[in-house]
Amino acid sequence: MGAVADEPWLTDEEQKSWRSYLLMRRTLESHLERHLQREFGLSGSDFEILVNLSESETGRMRAFELGEATQWEKSRMSHHLSRMEKRGLIRKEACDARYPEIALTEQGRAAIEACAPAHVGRVRELFVDVFGPDRMAMLGAASDDVIAAIGKHQHTNCPPDVSGC
Amino acid sequence: MGAVADEPWLTDEEQKSWRSYLLMRRTLESHLERHLQREFGLSGSDFEILVNLSESETGRMRAFELGEATQWEKSRMSHHLSRMEKRGLIRKEACDARYPEIALTEQGRAAIEACAPAHVGRVRELFVDVFGPDRMAMLGAASDDVIAAIGKHQHTNCPPDVSGC
Repeated sequence: MGAVADEPWLTDEEQKSWRSYLLMRRTLESHLERHLQREFGLSGSDFEILVNLSESETGRMRAFELGEATQWEKSRMSHHLSRMEKRGLIRKEACDARYPEIALTEQGRAAIEACAPAHVGRVRELFVDVFGPDRMAMLGAASDDVIAAIGKHQHTNCPPDVSGC
Repeated sequence: MGAVADEPWLTDEEQKSWRSYLLMRRTLESHLERHLQREFGLSGSDFEILVNLSESETGRMRAFELGEATQWEKSRMSHHLSRMEKRGLIRKEACDARYPEIALTEQGRAAIEACAPAHVGRVRELFVDVFGPDRMAMLGAASDDVIAAIGKHQHTNCPPDVSGC
């Protein structure tokens, strides 16, 4: 490493905020997942798939679209969808044998509708209301900026055959 | 559901910010994990364990302390530590047969020291510098508030034998 400007290390202030953010992310995520699991028998991963399907216009999406929405790797997606199909929450519909559509079943829709109010209630109580309107708006804007920066970084630095370098 | 005050649903504004936050969290996490994996052969989970051990005063911690720091479930921790031990990154030291200490090996320390500058460089470029000092400070404070709110919620609502209800 060369001049000070090249040193990536965070200042004490930055480090403190970054650590708080990491711990919050982890604490909130595991709190919400335990709540879903205990009260509704759904994992965080189940919930993510069900939310995406239930909000799509037709109640069905292709696996690669779910992959874009969740940022999961292909193999994780494929294994998880198979487990959810066995439990009757989704159904694979082979209008095209290689790229089946993933459809929400009635049971899957009932599951997401049953847990959504309690889940959103936790999100409101423990996150949205704690941030308050100004900090929420700020977080939303800063999050969009980070997503744009990552997109730009990948566009600038990654050869097309290397995913997300 | 009863009066409007009981409705947990988020307003459009809140929903937009919450969704941006979720997508940012996911996009950043998977970007940083792919970078660690590709450049250094470490998973995000490996990195988390190595960081915690390398920052502990003695380079060793008990599994339950790692569990508190990472918020992982016991079985995930136990499986992951076994895999890391096989790869020579950590060592279980049975000063107490039931609760062995997890110690960083030389190889584990070399691995974390090799990847840390590049990892922190990404965190700075794509997150800390994008937020900027004011928004970082705000995020840190709000994150501390959320962690406190979850702690208070659990303290108030959970019987001692139900973890994180």
